[in-house]
Amino acid sequence: MLPDLNTLSDFRNALAQAPAADAAARSACEARNGQLTKPPGALGQLEEIAIWYGSWRKTDRPEIETPQVIVFAGNHGVTARGVSAFPSEVTVQMVANFKAGGAAINQLARLAGARMDVHALDLERPTADFTREPAMSEADLLQALQTGWSAVHSDTDLLVVGEMGIGNTTSAAAICNALYGGVASDWTGRGTGVGDDALSLKTQVVAEAVALHDSRDGLDVLRCLGGREVAAMAGAIAAARIRRIPVILDGFICCAAAACLVEISDHALDHAIAGHQSAEGGHQALLSRLGKSPLLSLGLRLGEGSGAALAIQVLKGALACHSCMATFAEAGVSDG
Amino acid sequence: MLPDLNTLSDFRNALAQAPAADAAARSACEARNGQLTKPPGALGQLEEIAIWYGSWRKTDRPEIETPQVIVFAGNHGVTARGVSAFPSEVTVQMVANFKAGGAAINQLARLAGARMDVHALDLERPTADFTREPAMSEADLLQALQTGWSAVHSDTDLLVVGEMGIGNTTSAAAICNALYGGVASDWTGRGTGVGDDALSLKTQVVAEAVALHDSRDGLDVLRCLGGREVAAMAGAIAAARIRRIPVILDGFICCAAAACLVEISDHALDHAIAGHQSAEGGHQALLSRLGKSPLLSLGLRLGEGSGAALAIQVLKGALACHSCMATFAEAGVSDG
Repeated sequence: MLPDLNTLSDFRNALAQAPAADAAARSACEARNGQLTKPPGALGQLEEIAIWYGSWRKTDRPEIETPQVIVFAGNHGVTARGVSAFPSEVTVQMVANFKAGGAAINQLARLAGARMDVHALDLERPTADFTREPAMSEADLLQALQTGWSAVHSDTDLLVVGEMGIGNTTSAAAICNALYGGVASDWTGRGTGVGDDALSLKTQVVAEAVALHDSRDGLDVLRCLGGREVAAMAGAIAAARIRRIPVILDGFICCAAAACLVEISDHALDHAIAGHQSAEGGHQALLSRLGKSPLLSLGLRLGEGSGAALAIQVLKGALACHSCMATFAEAGVSDG
Repeated sequence: MLPDLNTLSDFRNALAQAPAADAAARSACEARNGQLTKPPGALGQLEEIAIWYGSWRKTDRPEIETPQVIVFAGNHGVTARGVSAFPSEVTVQMVANFKAGGAAINQLARLAGARMDVHALDLERPTADFTREPAMSEADLLQALQTGWSAVHSDTDLLVVGEMGIGNTTSAAAICNALYGGVASDWTGRGTGVGDDALSLKTQVVAEAVALHDSRDGLDVLRCLGGREVAAMAGAIAAARIRRIPVILDGFICCAAAACLVEISDHALDHAIAGHQSAEGGHQALLSRLGKSPLLSLGLRLGEGSGAALAIQVLKGALACHSCMATFAEAGVSDG
C-alpha cells in the first residue's frame, strides 16, 4: 500500500497522489452526530474531530485501538554557533532516556495506550552548519525521509511524531522563515530556554541561514535548513497521509516539518490536526499558516511529541462520545 | 472526618475551618519537578497542576487512582417562563440515559477510569419560579447541600461534579448577576441553544429575578436563585474541600455553584481547578472572577461534568510525567 521511496521524486509523486478522506463516511458520521443525546453542537470541537477522524478511517463508529508515537532524534551542526541552552551530548543522553522509559513522552504514550518507537538518526554525524552550506545532501535527505516513511507501523490508526535534537528550534525557525518570509525574529524563540543574548545570536543565525540558501521547494528547504529528525518526521507524516492514518501534530518543530509537505502538495496535511499550541515563539503564527487550530494550549515547549501525545486523550474522548453515546431514539429522550 | 451537616451554620463553619494544602508536600513536589529530565518549565501548566495536586494529596509522587464523577439533576420552576429550548421532561429522560450509560458523561467518565454516580433531586418537585419567590426554602437548600455533601465517596482522590437540569443556565446567570453585579445580559447565554427571541426573554427573566431578591450571602443567593442540583454541587465541592480532595470544575453552572462558596470563605476553592472554558456566554467572565484559568477550551457547552471529565486526562498526564519521569541523575542526562 505504501509505494517504494527510491528517489525524492517518488516522495513528491506519492504525496501528490495520496487518497482523500472518505466522503460517505463523513456523511454517515455527521448523520450519527446529529442523533446523539445532546443539544446540537454542545460537544464543540469534539464533534468536528470525531467526524474528521471517522472520515479518514472510513467508519461512522471509529475507535482508536493502535496509536503509535514515534520519536526521531538528530544532531545539528548549527549548534557550533551556540544557539542552544543545552550541549549536543544531551541528544544521545535523551535517546537513552527514551529507551529506558524515563522521559515525559514515555509517560504520555503509556497513558494513551500508544506503542512508542525511537529512531536515532546518525547522531554521531550531525548535519552540516546550515549558515555555511546545506544541512544535508540529497542522499542524506532521502535516507532521513525513508526512516520516517518506514517507521509507521502498518496497524497504526493514529500517529504522533515527536523529536529530540539539540539545536532543532533553530532549524525549524529557519524553515519557517524560508517558507513564509518575514524577518528571522518572527520565527525565532527561546527553545529549551536561552537567555536574551543567546536569543539575539540565534535570530542572527537564522537570518544568515535563510539568506544563504535559495531553496526551490518544500523538500529543498528541508534539505538545506532541516535536520535528519525533522526530515524523518516529514517522511512519517507523509506515509500516514498515503495510508489514511490520522496524525496529531506536535509543536513548532513537528509543524515546521509538516509545513514543508504543504509546499509540495496542498492537501498534504488534510489528515492532520494540531495537538497543541506550544509556548515556542513562532508556533502560533505557524499554526495559523497551516490553518490548524490547536486542541490544547497548556504552555508546553518540550517537544518529543509530548503535546500531541497528551492530545490523543482529547481525541479518544471525542470518539468515545461519538461512537458510544445513545441516540435520542435509543434513549427515549425528546430532541427539543 | 466530614462533620455532620444539620444546619446551614454547620456548612458555613465547616467550610471556614477547612484545612489548607500541605506546604511541605508542595515544596517536595517543586523540588522533584526541578530534577526531572526536561528543561525548566518545558511542561508548562502540567508542572503547576502536578505540584498543586500533590500538595493537596500530601505526596510528591501523586497518582489518580479513584476519581469520581457525580451528576446531580434537578428541575426548575422558572422553565414556566419559556427560558429553555428543551422541555422539562428532558431532565428525567436524561437521568435515565445517565443510568443506562448512554450520555456523553458516561463515555468520558469511563475513559477516565472514574466511578460515576447520579443523584436526581426531587425531579417531580421543581424549585419555585424565582421571578416570583425564592427558589428554595432553607430546609430545601439544606437537604440539597446534604445530598452533595454525602455523595462524595470516602476513597475519592479527584472529584468532578456535573449537572442536568432544564432551565439551569438561567439559574446560573441569575446567581452570577446577584454575586457580581453588572447587567443581566453580561451573564445570560444561549444554554442548550435558544434563539434570539428566547435569549431576550431569558435575559429579562434573569433581570427580574435578581431585582426581586436581596440576598445576604452566597448561601442565600444559592437558596433564592439556585436549583437543587446547583446546591448539591456546592455541597459536594465543599465536602471535597474539607477532605482535601482536589476538584476539577466544569462549566458555567458548576462554576456558579462554586462561586457561592467563595462568598462564604475566601479559600473555598483552593482545591479546585477549572477543567474547561465553556462556550456559554458568561463562563469566561465567571472564571476570571474565580481567578481560574481553564485547562481546555474546546467550545463545549453540554454540562453533565463533560468538560471537567475530559480534563481528568490532562491531570493524569501531568501526574504521569511528574511522578514517573526519570531525574537528570537517574537518567545520566546533563542538566544544561
